Amino acid sequence: MLTLYGYPLSSAAYRVRIALALKGVKVSTVNKQLRRGEHRQKDYLKINPQGFVPVLQLPDGTVLTQSLAIIEWLEESHPRPALLPSDPGARARVRSLCQLIACDIHPLNNLRVLQYLESSLSVAQAARDEWYRHWVATGFAALEEALGRDAARGRYCFGDQPGMADVCLVPQIYNARRYSVDLTPYPRIVAIDSACGELPAFASAAPEKQL
Amino acid sequence: MLTLYGYPLSSAAYRVRIALALKGVKVSTVNKQLRRGEHRQKDYLKINPQGFVPVLQLPDGTVLTQSLAIIEWLEESHPRPALLPSDPGARARVRSLCQLIACDIHPLNNLRVLQYLESSLSVAQAARDEWYRHWVATGFAALEEALGRDAARGRYCFGDQPGMADVCLVPQIYNARRYSVDLTPYPRIVAIDSACGELPAFASAAPEKQL
Repeated sequence: MLTLYGYPLSSAAYRVRIALALKGVKVSTVNKQLRRGEHRQKDYLKINPQGFVPVLQLPDGTVLTQSLAIIEWLEESHPRPALLPSDPGARARVRSLCQLIACDIHPLNNLRVLQYLESSLSVAQAARDEWYRHWVATGFAALEEALGRDAARGRYCFGDQPGMADVCLVPQIYNARRYSVDLTPYPRIVAIDSACGELPAFASAAPEKQL
Repeated sequence: MLTLYGYPLSSAAYRVRIALALKGVKVSTVNKQLRRGEHRQKDYLKINPQGFVPVLQLPDGTVLTQSLAIIEWLEESHPRPALLPSDPGARARVRSLCQLIACDIHPLNNLRVLQYLESSLSVAQAARDEWYRHWVATGFAALEEALGRDAARGRYCFGDQPGMADVCLVPQIYNARRYSVDLTPYPRIVAIDSACGELPAFASAAPEKQL
């Protein structure tokens, strides 16, 4: 069986939980408590020297890291239901939506970054919260515009089947709500999040279902 | 013909230049001067509302954004020479190295982030430089360790053929040198960079060759 090392509130782990659920792939889950530093313990660093979650460990011991690399692996090893369309241009489109979230928003708001702002740059709580909301708002404005342009737009980020971009979007919206980001400027994003929330794969992957 | 909108010093655009050169795909290049704000001009925002480089525009007008999505598109539409291995586990491995750079290092050191630190958080030049070097050093330490573990290690990031991880690594080292990051703790990374530098595809994509 596959083992997923995660953390309920890690949005990168949350992405992988959704993708596994959409594919119907069962895993054994080990949660690391990041705020207690469990990801920095020796036994875990042997598995992933970077100390990050998620990690997906295969039955032969192979360790996969980085959420989007794990999800691409899932797509290649468990092709149905597909999380990417078949046309190369459409695949690039969906991947670009994923990366808008995974490269342009999420890394800036990671726990380690917020901690650096606090401890090394003495940035106060209010300014850290403003930082967090700034990068979500900047990214969501671009994403809302991108979703509106898409010729293939539909119920989800790309067409009428949930896919890789939705897998990235839902955890980011979850984070945005935790930080009280005003979502009213992004009606398409909010509608897609609602549509995803009706699907058991997304609902069962939510952080509060992991406790 | 394909059109690449880039900027010599953008490391995301630099990645795409290397990948195009490795594939032997010719493009027409349009450079945007980010420090002069050319990427914020109306004509460019029509092409990419996010205002980022790189963009690869196809002959039919299709606009591809996000460097790794563009490179995956290249891999799918121009399969030879391959930038990813064929085995799914090995592909996940290479993609995770790419994402360690593209998600865990590069987004934190983007021009817009350094500008936010300066203008909104009044972080002084010395502390901004320290921030820059901190995220490179943290990421490179993880990458050096990951490269040492790899069963398939060789002349490049994965084996003896240059691939997608090298395409991401070389621009990141270029940036690290610009910010005077001490590279002596990362001998594997430095050796791979040297090996890549001997290849015309990498050499011709360097920022100073774009002027």
